[in-house]
Amino acid sequence: MARIERVEAGYYRIPLPEALSDSTHGTIAAFELVTLRVRDADGAEGLGYTYTTGRNGAAIHAVAAREIAELATGAEAERIEALWQRLWWALHYGGRGGPSVLALSAFDIALWDLKAKRAGLPLWLLLGGHEPRVACYAGGIDLHLSAAELVAQAGRTLARGFRAIKMKVGRARLGEDVERLAAMRAHLGADFPLMVDANMAWTADVAIRAARAFAPYAPLWLEEPVAPEDVAGHARVVREGGLPVAAGENLRSLWEFQALIAAGGVSYPEPDATNCGGVTAFMKIARLAEAHHLPVTSHGAHDVTVHLLAACPNASYLEVHGFGLDRFLEHPLRLEEGRAVAPERPGHGVALDWAGLAPLAAA
Amino acid sequence: MARIERVEAGYYRIPLPEALSDSTHGTIAAFELVTLRVRDADGAEGLGYTYTTGRNGAAIHAVAAREIAELATGAEAERIEALWQRLWWALHYGGRGGPSVLALSAFDIALWDLKAKRAGLPLWLLLGGHEPRVACYAGGIDLHLSAAELVAQAGRTLARGFRAIKMKVGRARLGEDVERLAAMRAHLGADFPLMVDANMAWTADVAIRAARAFAPYAPLWLEEPVAPEDVAGHARVVREGGLPVAAGENLRSLWEFQALIAAGGVSYPEPDATNCGGVTAFMKIARLAEAHHLPVTSHGAHDVTVHLLAACPNASYLEVHGFGLDRFLEHPLRLEEGRAVAPERPGHGVALDWAGLAPLAAA
Repeated sequence: MARIERVEAGYYRIPLPEALSDSTHGTIAAFELVTLRVRDADGAEGLGYTYTTGRNGAAIHAVAAREIAELATGAEAERIEALWQRLWWALHYGGRGGPSVLALSAFDIALWDLKAKRAGLPLWLLLGGHEPRVACYAGGIDLHLSAAELVAQAGRTLARGFRAIKMKVGRARLGEDVERLAAMRAHLGADFPLMVDANMAWTADVAIRAARAFAPYAPLWLEEPVAPEDVAGHARVVREGGLPVAAGENLRSLWEFQALIAAGGVSYPEPDATNCGGVTAFMKIARLAEAHHLPVTSHGAHDVTVHLLAACPNASYLEVHGFGLDRFLEHPLRLEEGRAVAPERPGHGVALDWAGLAPLAAA
Repeated sequence: MARIERVEAGYYRIPLPEALSDSTHGTIAAFELVTLRVRDADGAEGLGYTYTTGRNGAAIHAVAAREIAELATGAEAERIEALWQRLWWALHYGGRGGPSVLALSAFDIALWDLKAKRAGLPLWLLLGGHEPRVACYAGGIDLHLSAAELVAQAGRTLARGFRAIKMKVGRARLGEDVERLAAMRAHLGADFPLMVDANMAWTADVAIRAARAFAPYAPLWLEEPVAPEDVAGHARVVREGGLPVAAGENLRSLWEFQALIAAGGVSYPEPDATNCGGVTAFMKIARLAEAHHLPVTSHGAHDVTVHLLAACPNASYLEVHGFGLDRFLEHPLRLEEGRAVAPERPGHGVALDWAGLAPLAAA
């Protein structure tokens, strides 16, 4: 086993080609990217990263560059569980979520990339290997679009090869949400997998009313109807709203997922490997979902996450997220008949164009 | 109402006069202090601060100096609830705990200090005003001490005017904990308020065994028997252990307290104003405890927190924490017959010796 020789963190602000919007974050013109490279004593390298909607990036970088670099240098890179536990507890006071767990997530992804590269295996095979072609959907961040604009956007999304789409809801009036959803359903046909995402816009009672209003248009799921802390509210929306509920992009640990799943508050657990604690935590959450007879979907960072769902027998849709890195990737995510394909390159197979990123370095 | 003109953050590493220890953080030779000063357009200033056991400080400083300074400058300083909500949601993705909520806590404390100063009131009166003399205990961070050393330390603590003491438990063998506790009880007498603190050392079953072993020595409470996420475990320890349970220094929001209280997992909720979301969140947690017929105790930052408990009819003991700032304070916390006295100076009345702190600035 080789020891960690170097941990190198980067911090970038990536402008979006066009501004996106949802009910909580408003207009988003750029996202933050924090990268973390781990090199071991044999010269092998792993890459991890995390991102934000525009805040906390400097803090994540500080945890990565200062705390994690200091704590991990010299440790055995292959003992990921031991390192994860050590970092979780070393960062616990003032950590246990927030920037600390995002930095830990990036580090953990880098360690798994490194391990899979050293083993000469693509990550999805290293993790067990189920099915490399993963159903996926295009995650629209499009609350600002009118019904007609949504439909036009859907046409472009289908042309890119997608066979499932998520749209935002949570406009000021419920009628606007229903109108936009109805237009999409009419355009896409009865059986097209179409999800809606409220980004925590509502209280439980408002969410139940919305879910019932959406039900005739049969969205595959209603995502983040209420705040992540409202476990009882989630359970009410599942029971009383009449739609499956997806949630998890704002849960920051295995234990937050455990509480929500145990309460019956989620139909599609939706961890994000870049904020729930990395590959290590994502896979535990996926297995926890499996133990509860639930599918697992995902949020964000699709280039890495395709491997994780490709290792899960209970994989549901991979989110292909609006915060894309394609212009910095040699091998962007490949779609085949609407499915994302986990690459066969060793590790997660994501190589960033560091020269292209350099001008976007955040101060 | 005056607008916020300037937010200034500082970051220091404070060496402890002697190294401390507990079951989770091991030996602690220094703590981190992050300060936050808010000045309004009339030139009035408020001071807030937070601290850590030694990690995450740079990240907290980054959130304070970059995100909060940018988001808050120009806002109306007196509209604390509006600012709190705005910051919570602006920092939510990548926040919702960790360094972000510690920075928010420091900011919120500064705003309440500013408000009370402008009103010409000590904070405890601004917040409603109950009783300025607050029962308190000396929080020993002393897991490394033998039974004899503990007893000797207790003598020094009594000589400083304390009439209640907390000691650490969670040694490798339960018998050692019992022996140390028995020696303290024998030395201090049957009715002396003596608490024990396990700092999350155990699983629920181990904690229940420990609680039963401690029960003959009647500790006032058993603190943090299990990890903060283990809500069901807390409830089992309360029901099956036979001792009251204190918990909360590692809960990072009103909603985490709500879940633990609703589950019957805590007898003495123990928020820390510097990590639960500031004065705003602390007071909501204290009122939530009151609504559940529970006392409220505290963790850390006693110089500010004495005001908060002095405003609560359900106040239990104030922790006088081992991470003291006395050598940087013009007016250290005053004890009268074993009670801490909330000062009558406007605001929280804490003024830091910036010149004395300057050499301890962290890079």
